[in-house]
Amino acid sequence: MFQALADPTRRGMVERLSRGPASVSDLAKPFAMSLPAVVQHLQVLEASGLVTSQKIGRVRTCSLDTAALSLAEQWINDRRKGWEHRLDRLGDLLAENFDDPEQGGQS
Amino acid sequence: MFQALADPTRRGMVERLSRGPASVSDLAKPFAMSLPAVVQHLQVLEASGLVTSQKIGRVRTCSLDTAALSLAEQWINDRRKGWEHRLDRLGDLLAENFDDPEQGGQS
Repeated sequence: MFQALADPTRRGMVERLSRGPASVSDLAKPFAMSLPAVVQHLQVLEASGLVTSQKIGRVRTCSLDTAALSLAEQWINDRRKGWEHRLDRLGDLLAENFDDPEQGGQS
Repeated sequence: MFQALADPTRRGMVERLSRGPASVSDLAKPFAMSLPAVVQHLQVLEASGLVTSQKIGRVRTCSLDTAALSLAEQWINDRRKGWEHRLDRLGDLLAENFDDPEQGGQS
């Protein structure tokens, strides 16, 4: 999933889809690349679970899947929270060590 | 930044650093790769802003930088929220269209 988001074109597509579903040709418009290249990027996004698509008649419409986005968000959040929690504990330990242990931990 | 997180080794390093700072050789331990390869991954992490390092004597110690993690988290969150807001509005529109407009929007 991070691999899917690592490419600026694909991030642009996710950005566009966050404003609503779009056909493949609509998605291709802002990018100076061939339709097959766009389709290849879409396949990476679909493989990662970030995007789903449905073909009705001759038009393939793409949508965002927020469950996958939530997963990536959660992973980052867990790492950040873990680190911040650790820094808080470190702060507490430093504060304790500046106290006089003979006085029962008061400063 | 997503490029930095796209690699499983680098995600493993971020995971490790979320539990506390580590020396380069500590970070290298769980991975079956040469120290230069580990250093190269660390350089990608440092370039992305996710990791900072400080050399004291002969030991380089690496730490996580949560500001960069927050940025990635925020980008994903904004996309997800935009899409969810859109789906909510779509739900409202559908609900309205099932009402009888002659009756002032009541179902």
